[in-house]
Amino acid sequence: MQAFVDRLIEQVSLKSSCAVVGLDPQLELLPPSILESAYTTHGHTLEAAANAAGEFCRRVTEVVAPHVPAVKIQSACFERLGWMGAKVGSELIRKAQEEGLLVILDCKRGDVGFTAQAYAEGYLGEVSVGEVPQTPWGVDAITVNPYLGWDSVQPFVEVAKEHGKGVFVLVKTSNLSSGQVQDLVAEGRQVYAHLAELVSSWSQELMGVHGYSSLGAVVAATYPRDAARIRTLMPHCYFLVPGYGAQGGTAQDVMPSFNPDGTGAVINSGRGIIYAYYKPPYDDEFGPERWEEAVEAAVIAMNDDINSALVEHFGRPGTGRPQASRVT
Amino acid sequence: MQAFVDRLIEQVSLKSSCAVVGLDPQLELLPPSILESAYTTHGHTLEAAANAAGEFCRRVTEVVAPHVPAVKIQSACFERLGWMGAKVGSELIRKAQEEGLLVILDCKRGDVGFTAQAYAEGYLGEVSVGEVPQTPWGVDAITVNPYLGWDSVQPFVEVAKEHGKGVFVLVKTSNLSSGQVQDLVAEGRQVYAHLAELVSSWSQELMGVHGYSSLGAVVAATYPRDAARIRTLMPHCYFLVPGYGAQGGTAQDVMPSFNPDGTGAVINSGRGIIYAYYKPPYDDEFGPERWEEAVEAAVIAMNDDINSALVEHFGRPGTGRPQASRVT
Repeated sequence: MQAFVDRLIEQVSLKSSCAVVGLDPQLELLPPSILESAYTTHGHTLEAAANAAGEFCRRVTEVVAPHVPAVKIQSACFERLGWMGAKVGSELIRKAQEEGLLVILDCKRGDVGFTAQAYAEGYLGEVSVGEVPQTPWGVDAITVNPYLGWDSVQPFVEVAKEHGKGVFVLVKTSNLSSGQVQDLVAEGRQVYAHLAELVSSWSQELMGVHGYSSLGAVVAATYPRDAARIRTLMPHCYFLVPGYGAQGGTAQDVMPSFNPDGTGAVINSGRGIIYAYYKPPYDDEFGPERWEEAVEAAVIAMNDDINSALVEHFGRPGTGRPQASRVT
Repeated sequence: MQAFVDRLIEQVSLKSSCAVVGLDPQLELLPPSILESAYTTHGHTLEAAANAAGEFCRRVTEVVAPHVPAVKIQSACFERLGWMGAKVGSELIRKAQEEGLLVILDCKRGDVGFTAQAYAEGYLGEVSVGEVPQTPWGVDAITVNPYLGWDSVQPFVEVAKEHGKGVFVLVKTSNLSSGQVQDLVAEGRQVYAHLAELVSSWSQELMGVHGYSSLGAVVAATYPRDAARIRTLMPHCYFLVPGYGAQGGTAQDVMPSFNPDGTGAVINSGRGIIYAYYKPPYDDEFGPERWEEAVEAAVIAMNDDINSALVEHFGRPGTGRPQASRVT
């Protein structure tokens, strides 16, 4: 069975893109035509809201599938719509995979061993119902919160190993107050540095064939100096990098997340891509009627932006296979 | 609007119980009669599994409602059954509330501000659909992971304030490797102690009328010395204490989680109560056919165990209202 990280590297190479599109549907930002249609059918209900979010995201996956290796589904945006949101999210996972996209579920789960096991089986693996295996969600990778330590991460690693899936552990997050815990200095280094070393050692459990592990890390673009340090602490971990675009990070800011051969990171952008239709420079050209064209233009522009910076920094496009020398 | 913590204190007093029953349905432990009935109707499907989990938990709520103030629903056990698990979980929340129980959703969410807002509105508050407010989940309180700092907790506090809800922040968890992050020593004290101080200061935002805040903390019974220290750092925070019973904690172990007047904590037990039918001393007396009687016997025994220890330690039952002196 092919490892998640190897499938990811293959898709990055195939599509010449290190971009991940974040599917974070917010009702108030959806194109009016989609909302109106849902309200006409279902009234102002959670069912209408969930269906509108689902319809929007499904169409986004069709637009971005040729251009990016993966989408990151923000679980909160579906959970907040009740169980109907979960149903629509579940359908979206399958739809994105049918379009050839890898699906990273951003749900930041973290719990004690037995409960982590339940999350891991449910989201990445199988659940045995009277000895018949069922696949409740079937995502390709998941984000995990490490505050509870290894026995809260291990079940995800075990299930990922068995099913060729991936796990991204939060190390340094993009928000303003991330430092309140993550930057505390213990034994001469920050909590995030301790985590980086722990995750790096755990990552040996899930090594793929290209010198990277399917146990990766979430490392924000909004703290480039921290990212540079974390990069050196965990050279074999693939990074999932939030904070580019709407959250303020630039292509320059995400460069420290790559290894010296220009590989090893995928960069997420959500709002900057999926709601491009209502922001410059896309609002004038496309507007709400042609929102899908705005999405496509924005994702192409993001690829160009990152790829140009990769060539500038590393002297080569970073979207090829990792150099053979990395595997040693 | 009455604060969550005041509703909790009222229920603790009314039922003379500091026990919370954890609803953690595991398929393989459900009474055979419930499983067989679900498999007969729906086959070996996720729908069958979700319906069996729901039926079991609904009947548990009917049995325990006269005896305990609250139930803690383990979100993972429902999420692992796919969107049908979410649907059944959603119905269970309403059922437990109809039975007069407060519902704590144990989902340990933690994310950046915008996303935390989505979780908070979805689980504790309202979501506006075309300006019509809807209540997707409507739980009374939620557990939150603090690894991302204040801006990941603040949205829960804001929504809790608006809707009279509660938030329990993970400070010290019950699992073996909790120390890998939580016990790191920074600036002379453990990460969990930093968190205790942070949560204690944040708790001022949600003070109720009895001297306790609706911003509480999860503090495990399995580390009693840490619990004693954390108790002194956050005297106004109500504790939700996991680790009693099946996880090894005794009534003595949970005593340090109470304040000197014997108030300020609720103790969770899941497996030790809901699966009592297959373990001594209840298996011989009741067995799988009379599993509901085993649940009732186990919850009454837990109340007696904790209440006796409270009298022994604090010289008074701890299940009354907090002493007036605490309010100062």
